[in-house]
Amino acid sequence: MTPDGFPVVGIVGGGQLARMMIQAAIPLGIHIRLLSERADDSAARVCTEVVIGSPDSIDDLVNFAAGCDAVTLDHELVNLDALERIEAAGGVVRPGPFTLAFAKDKAHQRREFAAAGLPVPEFAEVTTAEEIEAFASRLGGWPVVVKAQRGGYDGRGVWVVDSPEGADELAAEAAERGVALITERFVRIKNELAVLVARRPGGQMVVYPVVETVQRDGICHEVLAPAPVPPDVVERALAIGLRVADLTCATGIVATELFWSEGDEVLINEIATRPHNSGHFSIDGAQTSQFANHLRGVLDWPLGDTSLLAPAVVMANLLGADSESLAPRMAAALRQPAPGVHPHLYGKGVRPGRKLGHVNALGDDPVETRERAVRAAAVLTGRAE
Amino acid sequence: MTPDGFPVVGIVGGGQLARMMIQAAIPLGIHIRLLSERADDSAARVCTEVVIGSPDSIDDLVNFAAGCDAVTLDHELVNLDALERIEAAGGVVRPGPFTLAFAKDKAHQRREFAAAGLPVPEFAEVTTAEEIEAFASRLGGWPVVVKAQRGGYDGRGVWVVDSPEGADELAAEAAERGVALITERFVRIKNELAVLVARRPGGQMVVYPVVETVQRDGICHEVLAPAPVPPDVVERALAIGLRVADLTCATGIVATELFWSEGDEVLINEIATRPHNSGHFSIDGAQTSQFANHLRGVLDWPLGDTSLLAPAVVMANLLGADSESLAPRMAAALRQPAPGVHPHLYGKGVRPGRKLGHVNALGDDPVETRERAVRAAAVLTGRAE
Repeated sequence: MTPDGFPVVGIVGGGQLARMMIQAAIPLGIHIRLLSERADDSAARVCTEVVIGSPDSIDDLVNFAAGCDAVTLDHELVNLDALERIEAAGGVVRPGPFTLAFAKDKAHQRREFAAAGLPVPEFAEVTTAEEIEAFASRLGGWPVVVKAQRGGYDGRGVWVVDSPEGADELAAEAAERGVALITERFVRIKNELAVLVARRPGGQMVVYPVVETVQRDGICHEVLAPAPVPPDVVERALAIGLRVADLTCATGIVATELFWSEGDEVLINEIATRPHNSGHFSIDGAQTSQFANHLRGVLDWPLGDTSLLAPAVVMANLLGADSESLAPRMAAALRQPAPGVHPHLYGKGVRPGRKLGHVNALGDDPVETRERAVRAAAVLTGRAE
Repeated sequence: MTPDGFPVVGIVGGGQLARMMIQAAIPLGIHIRLLSERADDSAARVCTEVVIGSPDSIDDLVNFAAGCDAVTLDHELVNLDALERIEAAGGVVRPGPFTLAFAKDKAHQRREFAAAGLPVPEFAEVTTAEEIEAFASRLGGWPVVVKAQRGGYDGRGVWVVDSPEGADELAAEAAERGVALITERFVRIKNELAVLVARRPGGQMVVYPVVETVQRDGICHEVLAPAPVPPDVVERALAIGLRVADLTCATGIVATELFWSEGDEVLINEIATRPHNSGHFSIDGAQTSQFANHLRGVLDWPLGDTSLLAPAVVMANLLGADSESLAPRMAAALRQPAPGVHPHLYGKGVRPGRKLGHVNALGDDPVETRERAVRAAAVLTGRAE
C-alpha cells in the first residue's frame, strides 16, 4: 500500500500491455511497480518504479512481490513455481497459477475445455510422425495443425502440416528440441473472432462486444468492433467467453480467440489470461478500457461497463515501419477527417514486423471508420503519404 | 528530442493538470519533463523525469527548458521574464508570454478584450475607495465586484463589495499589500458557462461543446456537457471562445469562463490559457481529451475532434473529504449503475475543500447522468454510503 492507502500493483513484464495498464492506473490512484528485463522496455519508459529482473527467476519474482498488494502479468512466460511460492507466502497473484496453466499449456487447456463441453477443434497429444499421420487419416486427410504444447505465441509454435513428409520433419525436430506437441483439425474459417471478459475473484463478470480480428499470415492486422457476424454467432461467442472465464477462474481480463468456421461452428482457437491485442479498441471505444477493467478485477473492485461509445470502433496495428522512427510521421497521421484517430505508441525501436503501436478510430460507418484507422496506420508506418 | 525522435515537452508546475497531460502524452509517444516544486506533487508522482525547482526562479526555468522541444505550463504563476529569456535563446514556450499576460493581468485582459469589442462587464482600474464608490454610483449602486489585477484564482482575489465601508476596508488592505485592483459590474447570472478552444500556433482551432459550470461559493462543483441553454446562447459563447483564442494567440487549450446574465447577456468572466477544470469531462466524454489537444497544439500537430461521445457528459469535482484517504472508498464509488463512472484521482493528500480529483459520467439522460456522477463523488469523499 502507498502511504495514502492506495494499492500497489506489481506487473511482471515490461511490454506494451504493462505500459497501457500504467496509463489506466494513473486516474485510479493505483501505484504500479514494474518488473522489467530492461530499463528501456516499453512499460519501463513510463513507469516511476521499475525493478530490473527476470520473469524466469524465482528470487527476482519473490523479492518483487514483497510489498505489492497484488501481482499481475504482462505475459504468460512467467515461472509458475515462483508464483506458487508468492501465494504460499500470503501474496496475491492475479491471475494465479491455476488460471495461467490454461494459457501456458495447450494440451491441458484442450483437455479441460473438451471435458467441460466447450467447442474446441478435434485434437490429440502426439509425439511421433505416425501419431500425426494416424490423426490426419482419422479426420479424413491432410492438412492438420500441429502446435507446441507450451510457448506458442502469435503464430510461432504453430505449423500447418500437409503431408507425411512434413509430419516426419516436424516430429523429428520437435523430439530433438524436447518440444511436446498436440495436433488439431485444420479449421476452414470464415472469420476469426475474439471475446474479452473481465472477472473478479468472486465470479462477477462483464463481457465486451464480440470483435472480428482480421488476420494475415497469422498476425492480427485489424480489429473490428462489433464483429460483423450474425446474432447467433455473437451469442455463441459470448457464451464461450463467459464459460472460459469461469472455468479458468480468471481474474482481470481473459481473451478467447475464436474461429467461425465455414461449417458455421464457433470454436476456441487460443486464450490469453491477460489484456489482449483484440481488446485495444476499448481504450478509446468503450466505456471502460480493458486495462482499467483488468486492474479493477485484479484488485477485486467492481467492474466497469463494456459498451461501445460509437456504432463502429476499429483498431489497426502498427506492424514494423518503412522508416527508422514513427515520430516524424505523427503530424501526418493525425491529419485525418473528423472524428480522427487515436494513435497508441509503445515506445519501441522499429524492427521488421514488430508491433510498434496501434491506432483506434470511432465512427458511425464501419467501412469509413476502418479506412480511417488503416490509413492512419499506413501513414505512421511510412507505407502511405 | 528523445533518442527515437519523439518530442520532449517540459511542463512547468506539478499539479493535476500536468498529471493529466502526462497521461495523455504516453500514447502519443511524447516524453514529459516536469518542473515541480516537490517530489510528491500530483504530477511528480507519475512522471519519470522530474526536476525539482521553482516556477518563480529564472535560473530554474532557463535550465529546465534546455533540451525541451517545447515548454508548457500547469498554471500561470510563472516568471514571465524567464519565459522571455527562454524564447530569446531560441526555446519554444507555448503558450508564450504574450498569451499568458491575458491570464495573469486582469486589467490588461479587460482593456484588450473591450477594445476588440468582446463582451466584458463594465470595469475600471481603481486604487482608492473613492474610485470604487464613483464606479458604483455610475452603475446605479452597490454591489460591485473588486478583483486583484494579478493573482486571482478560483474565487480568491475576488470580492463582492456592497457598501462604502466595504470599499474603504478593501482599498486600504490592497494598498497596504501593494495589490492593484479593478472593479467590475456585479453581474446577476442565470448560469455560468465555459468554452474551451484548442489552437495551433498557425491559427487552426477546434472548439469543445459549451458547458455549464455549476458553482457554489465561487467553486466549481459540477460541469454539464452540453450546457442546457438555448442555441443562441451557445452560439454566442462559441463565437466568444474562438475570438478569445485568436486575440490571445493561444497555443494548446484556452478556456473562457462566461456569465449568462439575467438580462440575457453572455459576458466574459475569466480566461485560463491552459487546460481547465471545465474541460475535464473531455477525458472520457469527448473524442479527444483537452490534454491530448493541448499537447497537440503545443507541438503544432493537427488537432483532434472535440465532439461528445454520449448525449450527456457530467463531471463532478472531489472537493475535500470526510475521511483521511479516498482509497478505502474506491470500490464503493465504482459500484454505480451502468454505464458507471470514471474517477480521476490527483494523488494529493486530503485537506478541507482541496480539489482531490473528479468523476466523469456519460449517459443518455442529463439528469440521471448528473445524479450518477454526483453520487459517486459523494461516496468517494465520504459524504454518502
